[in-house]
Amino acid sequence: MSGIIYNPIGIIHTPFKEAKGTPIQPTASVNNEGKVEIFPKYSSGLQDLENFSHIFLIYHFHLSKKASLMVKPFMDDNEHGVFATRVPSRPNSIGFSIVRLIKIKKNILYINDVDIIDGTPLLDIKPYVHDFDFRKVTKSGWLEHNIYKLKETKDDERFAK
Amino acid sequence: MSGIIYNPIGIIHTPFKEAKGTPIQPTASVNNEGKVEIFPKYSSGLQDLENFSHIFLIYHFHLSKKASLMVKPFMDDNEHGVFATRVPSRPNSIGFSIVRLIKIKKNILYINDVDIIDGTPLLDIKPYVHDFDFRKVTKSGWLEHNIYKLKETKDDERFAK
Repeated sequence: MSGIIYNPIGIIHTPFKEAKGTPIQPTASVNNEGKVEIFPKYSSGLQDLENFSHIFLIYHFHLSKKASLMVKPFMDDNEHGVFATRVPSRPNSIGFSIVRLIKIKKNILYINDVDIIDGTPLLDIKPYVHDFDFRKVTKSGWLEHNIYKLKETKDDERFAK
Repeated sequence: MSGIIYNPIGIIHTPFKEAKGTPIQPTASVNNEGKVEIFPKYSSGLQDLENFSHIFLIYHFHLSKKASLMVKPFMDDNEHGVFATRVPSRPNSIGFSIVRLIKIKKNILYINDVDIIDGTPLLDIKPYVHDFDFRKVTKSGWLEHNIYKLKETKDDERFAK
């Protein structure tokens, strides 16, 4: 099967200029602001988005090193299969963040709770919708005993190029 | 900026052989079973995934027609910007579904609550984690007055090639 080609629709601007020290999830990055610049040719696709409080930003982890199938994620000292983690180095380095949308002015989205490195290429935006996206989780694997570390854990560059 | 190339890591097998009649969200497709075949070269990345009750499948909408920036989504008779919707025809046709993971046998994932067309190429898998993925939504835009249609709405092929 041949490769699938995507072209960035914009660029994400944030206070985090390098992997080291970047928050590892939006829920551990409350009130860190960012801006998303949508390339003008796509900006008409933003109509009515401002009426959603939260959005998925889907992007390419452009600074991540080559993937390993077994990885030691930020919140654990043990190795796990890469698909059982959210680490940025993956066979296809697709990431997403659920961020708070504050406002949209022309082709700029003003967002909050940002855990993304500055300059990240954006691939897609989707509205976050409770009736689509809420699940009653019954098992959280290796994270059950590690989630208490979320707030204090930062990116330490282990997956950076 | 040049294109980003992703290579499928597997194929999603479901009872839905064409767009027409396919459920439009997992939450409107309870107890519809599917299987995800992971290509053997990636199967070691599945380790420890089985201990999560829900997973994100991130995939390419391979049967979608060329994107428009203004679209009439399945649940509304009005047009909205494509990024304010979850329709499959998008500038980059990336989709995701949060499905229930039943079990994993070798390189096959047995899943439930499937809203995906048979043969869809899989790009990534991530665990669904309450502390990462739950948000208290305060605004749901055009969906606020349309979400009651979710259970009865099916794909009607409007975005199919």
